[in-house]
Amino acid sequence: MILLRNITLHDKPAHILVDGGRIAKISREHIDVPGAEIVDCSGKAVIPGFVNMHTHAAMVLLRGIHEDLSLYDWLNNIWKIEANLDGEFIYWATKVACLEMIRCGTTTFNDQYWYSPHARKAAIEMGIRPVVSFIFLDSHNPDLAARQREACERLYQRSLDWGEESQFAISIHSVYTVSEENILWASRFAREHSLKLHLHLGETELEDKDCRKAHGGLSPTAYFDSLGVLGPDVIAAHCLWLSDDDVRILGERKVNCVHNINSNLKLASGYRFKYNELRDAGANVCIGTDGAASSNNMDILDHMKNAAFLQKAWRGDPAQMPINELIDCATVHGARALGIDTGVIREGAWADLSLIDITGTAFLSPGSTAANLIYAANSEVISDVMAQGKWVMRGRKIPAEAEIIESARKVLSQI
Amino acid sequence: MILLRNITLHDKPAHILVDGGRIAKISREHIDVPGAEIVDCSGKAVIPGFVNMHTHAAMVLLRGIHEDLSLYDWLNNIWKIEANLDGEFIYWATKVACLEMIRCGTTTFNDQYWYSPHARKAAIEMGIRPVVSFIFLDSHNPDLAARQREACERLYQRSLDWGEESQFAISIHSVYTVSEENILWASRFAREHSLKLHLHLGETELEDKDCRKAHGGLSPTAYFDSLGVLGPDVIAAHCLWLSDDDVRILGERKVNCVHNINSNLKLASGYRFKYNELRDAGANVCIGTDGAASSNNMDILDHMKNAAFLQKAWRGDPAQMPINELIDCATVHGARALGIDTGVIREGAWADLSLIDITGTAFLSPGSTAANLIYAANSEVISDVMAQGKWVMRGRKIPAEAEIIESARKVLSQI
Repeated sequence: MILLRNITLHDKPAHILVDGGRIAKISREHIDVPGAEIVDCSGKAVIPGFVNMHTHAAMVLLRGIHEDLSLYDWLNNIWKIEANLDGEFIYWATKVACLEMIRCGTTTFNDQYWYSPHARKAAIEMGIRPVVSFIFLDSHNPDLAARQREACERLYQRSLDWGEESQFAISIHSVYTVSEENILWASRFAREHSLKLHLHLGETELEDKDCRKAHGGLSPTAYFDSLGVLGPDVIAAHCLWLSDDDVRILGERKVNCVHNINSNLKLASGYRFKYNELRDAGANVCIGTDGAASSNNMDILDHMKNAAFLQKAWRGDPAQMPINELIDCATVHGARALGIDTGVIREGAWADLSLIDITGTAFLSPGSTAANLIYAANSEVISDVMAQGKWVMRGRKIPAEAEIIESARKVLSQI
Repeated sequence: MILLRNITLHDKPAHILVDGGRIAKISREHIDVPGAEIVDCSGKAVIPGFVNMHTHAAMVLLRGIHEDLSLYDWLNNIWKIEANLDGEFIYWATKVACLEMIRCGTTTFNDQYWYSPHARKAAIEMGIRPVVSFIFLDSHNPDLAARQREACERLYQRSLDWGEESQFAISIHSVYTVSEENILWASRFAREHSLKLHLHLGETELEDKDCRKAHGGLSPTAYFDSLGVLGPDVIAAHCLWLSDDDVRILGERKVNCVHNINSNLKLASGYRFKYNELRDAGANVCIGTDGAASSNNMDILDHMKNAAFLQKAWRGDPAQMPINELIDCATVHGARALGIDTGVIREGAWADLSLIDITGTAFLSPGSTAANLIYAANSEVISDVMAQGKWVMRGRKIPAEAEIIESARKVLSQI
């Protein structure tokens, strides 16, 4: 049991008891709990752990290898490098990504990358919760498509032994990289086994144009929908190039739409994310960092800030995307999408939380802690992170950081 | 004398000798200098101190007071508060701003705010170089206009005793807040005394429209130009709403145009800054953070990153605004605008520089130190800052930080 004493919660003092990985009690009055380890949190505020809803975590070690390219050119270069990666690389690279995610207060991430058991192992050792997936990406090659179905079955069987410290999902990379046969097979497989379905959707204008050409005028959203893919179990990354009809479909199907603003800006994919329209239509909007090879970091605070900035800017209205909605997108909306009781400071929920040092200049102003955190500060003020009731960072120190960086250098030198 | 040994300069090892406030020697070979204090900089890279070319530093304590408003609504609210500020407030608030600027490696800033002698004193005590100005903002009131001219004369006289640790300039707030009489008087005064002229220009579409209505179709740029204001001694903030003709004029007059992307995004003023066009026309493009009450911080790294991201995004081309040009905008371009030998690591230049801890995850990739600093890291990796040969931050600690924050709380509670 850990008792977080004198902590600032929603801008007022509180005391939080953590027990069995969960938030056992929240009190505005002083409490004593015999046997609890007491942590004095004076000068600290608490926020829920962030849920990063779209990552390719291990790509953090491919950062900077190709800069200043558009998505398709960038992918073609990256795929050549990826052909040489192995489980060892993924394991250490995912640990590096976890270092960056923990440092910004992320305690759950929804990953899409190769060698997912290695990624899963890395994240669990770091103490945060991974959702890892089997990725369908067959480039319309029937032999490869068949092999991927078999590999998916095998990985699913293996995942049955995995506990609640992780979640297994199915990824359909995109409309342009997966055969119709496998889109159908994978989505049926996911539904049959109650697995989340993680996919890229409407990331670029070219994807939209190509899809309409290939599929009788259907947009990626309409095409996926025509195959019965879309539903509340779908986590769709990007959702940037959407027609009004696409927005309506994503809303009606209650799809979880992940906004990845920095990747969209840096690859010049676009920036007119239809946040209001998706929200109003009934979609569940979340935030993700994408892979750090395109975005160029795993710091969700950075991406949240730009999500709000760009909503204000492209709509020409400074009142757009208020801070409370922004925080929800990066916390409870992700939790809802994954069906995990996290992203909220509430009795009974997982004790996934971050302590923020509010003694610095960014918190002098009368604005809310959340607004000052997002707009004025950066992740440096996140002093401590707890995931499932265990400290994964104390005083910005993460155990094994030096060892991870050294091993990362080693695997990086081998590709 | 300080010898920075084993430091990474442009991605290769070097040794830098600092003497008399300036960079005395840069050597790729090991050097010994009798009497020099030796600082081992293994694991650190050096970059020039940043030049933040448009600030209202003391507004850092007005941050969060009014959020989510457009420029004119926001200004009307802010002006009511500003009426109650005094020199004591400005002094402590500027110290807070200096804390934030030093923490991101800024060693020179071009300020525009009230009670500038107090701002100057604060900055000099913090060890960084302020350019402070007398501000003309008469709201077209002839009495006030006359009083401002007298006050300007007095402050100028006082500034004659100021040494090279600061610079005195003249500010014309904008076309919409200053009478034509004072625009003419202030620009003549500046030229007569070889002072830089700092102004707001083309920040919003409304400013452009109103100016054209009031001045026979002339844009703010054309109107200023018709009065003979524009020249290479002018530092024009924002320069966002510009016609092709405006760009041509700013280029021909060799105006220093300061891009303030985060303020423009957050206030929803716009984002289509004509970087390429201004550069190609002959203008000198610089970077500024604006005041933290609108932007919402003084961290120039944050603003540099978004300057590049938005160039890529709005033009739909990921190769736009390459990293070397971005760095130049935030260093040597500002130095050139102010006529100060800073923003560069070169023998003879001021020893204004930052050390970056390159042992963390952001620098694992093969990308350049600069690209990793801007795109992957944040200001947390800036470990030490030297201004004019003196350390102003060591190991992210700045002397007097706690005292400044306490005093800032006090003055803040009094407004």
